[in-house]
Amino acid sequence: MRIDIITVLPEMLSGFVNTSILARAQKKGLAEIYIHDLRDYTKDKHRRVDDYPYGGFAGMVMQCQPIDDCISALKKERDYDEVIFTTPDGETFDQPMANKFSLHQNLIVLCGHYKGIDHRIREHLITKEISIGDYVLTGGEIAAAAIVDSVVRLIPGSISDEQSALSDSFQDSLLSAPVYTRPSNYKGWEVPEILLSGNDAKIKEWEMQQSYERTLKLRPDLLHKD
Amino acid sequence: MRIDIITVLPEMLSGFVNTSILARAQKKGLAEIYIHDLRDYTKDKHRRVDDYPYGGFAGMVMQCQPIDDCISALKKERDYDEVIFTTPDGETFDQPMANKFSLHQNLIVLCGHYKGIDHRIREHLITKEISIGDYVLTGGEIAAAAIVDSVVRLIPGSISDEQSALSDSFQDSLLSAPVYTRPSNYKGWEVPEILLSGNDAKIKEWEMQQSYERTLKLRPDLLHKD
Repeated sequence: MRIDIITVLPEMLSGFVNTSILARAQKKGLAEIYIHDLRDYTKDKHRRVDDYPYGGFAGMVMQCQPIDDCISALKKERDYDEVIFTTPDGETFDQPMANKFSLHQNLIVLCGHYKGIDHRIREHLITKEISIGDYVLTGGEIAAAAIVDSVVRLIPGSISDEQSALSDSFQDSLLSAPVYTRPSNYKGWEVPEILLSGNDAKIKEWEMQQSYERTLKLRPDLLHKD
Repeated sequence: MRIDIITVLPEMLSGFVNTSILARAQKKGLAEIYIHDLRDYTKDKHRRVDDYPYGGFAGMVMQCQPIDDCISALKKERDYDEVIFTTPDGETFDQPMANKFSLHQNLIVLCGHYKGIDHRIREHLITKEISIGDYVLTGGEIAAAAIVDSVVRLIPGSISDEQSALSDSFQDSLLSAPVYTRPSNYKGWEVPEILLSGNDAKIKEWEMQQSYERTLKLRPDLLHKD
């Protein structure tokens, strides 16, 4: 899988892309992630990529030309499954979407900044607008990082223990059960006795019940999703 | 405002903390953001901070001791408004929560990793569990980044044009209207004529209507929130 991220702040993303899961997936040849500096595509001599909005509104707007040129250059090299734009008014990202994206070959992720991008880009070049949640970020870089991380970790081999991904929250519409590790008594805080019993069947039953109870208490909406 | 982020992957966050809005806010003295490497607090000679979970489950679990010691060391220096843990089964982060956090003085954000943290930490030390959305990330670093970015940008003076933050999506339960910048005709793609009219009243009316129509079409749930 190949992911091309277009941004005005490449240095903001390099830490994400070169550590942890993304570093490992790239080393193993499971994913290629490229960060493109949008300023490399502007024709402005001061390397500007934004301008004042029409209508006298506040903020700055990212211009058509650099974005169009960057996306066009990428598309000339290969076909893309989706050209994603991260924006607070996009479709809300969730685990089923991450699962679907993890099956794609090539993705472009365009990070918005300032007050947004010229709407004509959204109408003509973007195939998918995604929000990672109902809050406003300074730019789309963190949203892009969230999408890329959640997608790449689903590629088989990316994380060391595949079973671990399968038992994640949301994969079965249930939150995870609580987890504990050594010591069994930390400053008087005890691990539930059942987990020390060695009775696998009972432990599995406890896990299922905890998972269900936590979902019922914290996120009842997930239980009524299907 | 001071934010202390506790992580096993400090290098993943450093690019993010030292660029863009966070760099500016720190330079202006509006925010102090410190990244703490959890491994500096472990008593394990191999600097491990995780161990196998009780019950024979898959994945690794972050241990009590390093987290407890790190949080205790910070709390000894000052009072914290919240000790936040980023986790997929936490309360869903949104703009009202960002607004509220932006009024706090001191926050700790603990990034989970591996299969999670020992549940006893969540019961005894964490005051707020937050999810940035219904998807699973490799670790809590990106979630922490999203929370910190969305909160710090609300501190007056952080972003260059305060009016720009006030007109963001979600601040009035409406999505933003489309934005456009020069040129008015790009490869035959035209800016809506009204924006070139110079009629401020009509432009304002158009903006309100677009904002409402986009919300009705893309996120009708926001209109019924209050």
